[in-house]
Amino acid sequence: MKKISRNLTMLFDYYEMTMANGYFKKGMGDKIAYFDVFYRSNPDNGGYAIAAGLEQVIEYINDLRFDEDDIAYLRSKGCFGEEFLSYLRDFHFSGDIWAVPEGTVVFPGEPLMTVRAPTMEAQFIETYLLMMLNHESMIATKAARITRAAKGRPVSEFGSRRAQGADAAILGARAAYIGGVSGTACAIADQVYGVPASGTMAHSWVQMFDTEYEAFRTYCEIYPDSVTLLIDTYNVLESGVPNAIRAFRETGVKKCAVRIDSGDITYLSCKIRKMLDEAGFTDCKIVASNSLDEYIIRGLLQQGAQVDAFGVGERLITSKSNPVFGGVYKLCAVEDEQGNIVPKIKLSENVGKITTPHFKKVYRLRGRDTGKAEADLICVHDEVVDDTKPLEIFDPENTWKTKVLENFTAEELLVPIFKDGKQVYTSPSIDEIRAHCKKSLDGIWEEVKRFDNPHNYYVDLSKKLWDIKFSMIKKKRNESKAGK
Amino acid sequence: MKKISRNLTMLFDYYEMTMANGYFKKGMGDKIAYFDVFYRSNPDNGGYAIAAGLEQVIEYINDLRFDEDDIAYLRSKGCFGEEFLSYLRDFHFSGDIWAVPEGTVVFPGEPLMTVRAPTMEAQFIETYLLMMLNHESMIATKAARITRAAKGRPVSEFGSRRAQGADAAILGARAAYIGGVSGTACAIADQVYGVPASGTMAHSWVQMFDTEYEAFRTYCEIYPDSVTLLIDTYNVLESGVPNAIRAFRETGVKKCAVRIDSGDITYLSCKIRKMLDEAGFTDCKIVASNSLDEYIIRGLLQQGAQVDAFGVGERLITSKSNPVFGGVYKLCAVEDEQGNIVPKIKLSENVGKITTPHFKKVYRLRGRDTGKAEADLICVHDEVVDDTKPLEIFDPENTWKTKVLENFTAEELLVPIFKDGKQVYTSPSIDEIRAHCKKSLDGIWEEVKRFDNPHNYYVDLSKKLWDIKFSMIKKKRNESKAGK
Repeated sequence: MKKISRNLTMLFDYYEMTMANGYFKKGMGDKIAYFDVFYRSNPDNGGYAIAAGLEQVIEYINDLRFDEDDIAYLRSKGCFGEEFLSYLRDFHFSGDIWAVPEGTVVFPGEPLMTVRAPTMEAQFIETYLLMMLNHESMIATKAARITRAAKGRPVSEFGSRRAQGADAAILGARAAYIGGVSGTACAIADQVYGVPASGTMAHSWVQMFDTEYEAFRTYCEIYPDSVTLLIDTYNVLESGVPNAIRAFRETGVKKCAVRIDSGDITYLSCKIRKMLDEAGFTDCKIVASNSLDEYIIRGLLQQGAQVDAFGVGERLITSKSNPVFGGVYKLCAVEDEQGNIVPKIKLSENVGKITTPHFKKVYRLRGRDTGKAEADLICVHDEVVDDTKPLEIFDPENTWKTKVLENFTAEELLVPIFKDGKQVYTSPSIDEIRAHCKKSLDGIWEEVKRFDNPHNYYVDLSKKLWDIKFSMIKKKRNESKAGK
Repeated sequence: MKKISRNLTMLFDYYEMTMANGYFKKGMGDKIAYFDVFYRSNPDNGGYAIAAGLEQVIEYINDLRFDEDDIAYLRSKGCFGEEFLSYLRDFHFSGDIWAVPEGTVVFPGEPLMTVRAPTMEAQFIETYLLMMLNHESMIATKAARITRAAKGRPVSEFGSRRAQGADAAILGARAAYIGGVSGTACAIADQVYGVPASGTMAHSWVQMFDTEYEAFRTYCEIYPDSVTLLIDTYNVLESGVPNAIRAFRETGVKKCAVRIDSGDITYLSCKIRKMLDEAGFTDCKIVASNSLDEYIIRGLLQQGAQVDAFGVGERLITSKSNPVFGGVYKLCAVEDEQGNIVPKIKLSENVGKITTPHFKKVYRLRGRDTGKAEADLICVHDEVVDDTKPLEIFDPENTWKTKVLENFTAEELLVPIFKDGKQVYTSPSIDEIRAHCKKSLDGIWEEVKRFDNPHNYYVDLSKKLWDIKFSMIKKKRNESKAGK
């Protein structure tokens, strides 16, 4: 497949470089640090998110390098020393990365990715990692919600023209496919990432002919195997449907469909269905588009709209109702000179911004009989959950809320991606990722996937981790009061 | 400057290619067509938008070409003939383009760009043109709103980590700078587009040291000329400010500032100002960030927040409250075999989706004394407005609302960009574009720029254009009723 990615080593927030220069000058750059990527709340007040973007992170890490133009640019800023700039010439990633595979259902507060590396490297990659994981996870999540609302009807992504730039269009189509859409209009997303592309016609095709009928007939002649006619250029019921029926009939096209892109979709689709059926075109599909999202699709189907497939543009490709996925990248530990892991915490006036310290692992706990996920448990890296014995878990905010799990399985969510700078993970094919996403979603109770007031899935801390976190909060609070 | 753009000829909606193949097969591809780019409503219910993205469109048009990989991909789809694929090998843009210069204030319904070219070319470029103009215009508009709310205080863009992909981060920073922000955190936007980049420090810097004071002091030592300390890692008032004051004092740093990224900004900034002033640091600036936008900034300043500069991330780089700019690309005319321009229209059940036909030009009419824009007038391409005589304009929806303009100037908004496929326009520097934007905004009455219920700026049609449009609507309605 064609490769269109660029070297984007220089896509970093400027402070990553001023900090790196600081660590270099102070001889602290090689100190091993641990950073977690996690997010704080689900998009659209939903019950979950879908992790995506890992493949792009892997590519970025492998491609990391500064060329002489980059060095020259940095020199021109006047705040970096020559010794540091020389160091950048050999800069590459030498650490370890663990991550949740793409397509996995994930929840707030748990690490989606953990980076262990010399501080300068681990800090530097923050901006790009967050950008990729935030963007693709957001779109995959939105796509999962929209396809859920469509109840099995195929959904096509066709938002490129409203995407926030080319990467948003291309990788957005990739993420949407992971999340469940069946294809895209974006040709390059097919060519480069294997997202099936297809397309119908624009209003301009119809306008280019003297009559709508002539435009329709011509398209059927050119694409006799399968054609979708856009029937709302002038008047759907008065001319669009009659002209489409006449064109289908006279050309004998094998597979036919009509698309409406304006007007009241429920009303029009029911009328169109009746006209098509009466003309004998019971197999003719009705495709609807025009600013759709999961809420509008749900409403249309509840009202009995006769729609067989949906085209979704701007509200998917920008995740319009929730266009920011708030993943963050936070220091959670360092190693001292003896290699001991020292947990680190960040407090905040906003309680929700307090981080969970330490090098961690995450287990997904599932009922052995149901296969459904009951809770995720965040543990210290060296803890092991024994799923042959009952396990008591508790709510980290209301610790008196406890629950004993029995007859469950425990699966680790984070898998090794890089070890000592070498990639140790091979990204599955896009269709495998998409299938994994479907399976991961199937393993979540319906209550959690509901759009309105979903059940709050448990993401708990192990006793050991909880004790470490809260003793650190207490200690830091006391130090602050002492003005340290 | 470094070039990071890629050839994105393959970034098109699949239907552009199926239609192109159709035009080719029917021998219609060379028929000259006119398409307009325009948008239907202002972002955030505001009174205006800022045009941006033209430079990227120019680059795309100049780069248009299919390579053998692209041809092979298209062949694999099984619906394009060899003759058509051969034609694509020599595909390039041979037409004309007019556009509004970047940074210009624009209004709904008026062409921001007009393309005149053989149908196959004019149709094919739709997706990319819209994507670029939509994205950058949206961000430039948001930036204009946010900097307006900041009332002269500098605003930095630092949303890369929440951007919808790399182009959204990089070109978003470019567009934000055009719209008025003073700089970005995104280093590559500086390197490639000349948007000034700068940065402070992350919480992780503070966490890496045993004490906050040590972290602050170290940073001041490394950057003695100018330093901004992030003071909310543990506790702003109890440790952050006292430690910052101590570090400033002991290192004697020349220019200093503090940044808060959480908590109540109004409350904290007033307390911080008092503490800094009492310690003698009256010149120390206070920078605020944390999910800001134009509404929050306006509120903070109304409440007396003591903030000297703002950092704005996700709500600018995604235009969070309005993440879609709805520019469309509509056929407005074709040329017949004699070269006569034949206007084209698209009707719709949604009245707002009816297009304005014909090859058009746009005048901005300004009071000669005030310099302020009073109305835009859309005319047929061959009309000339004589600004030495009184001019009657009227509301195209309520034609009885008329107004006579006297003592005004008339300036054409659209300028030639390509002529016969050759670029005839040179993009100004980014600083020139930014200055043009400021000037264009200064030429708009304050009432139009208000956030809440802004005055509705007049975008009128000339009498000649209005007559053509409404006679075509009537004719098409009658044809539809006759089932044509």
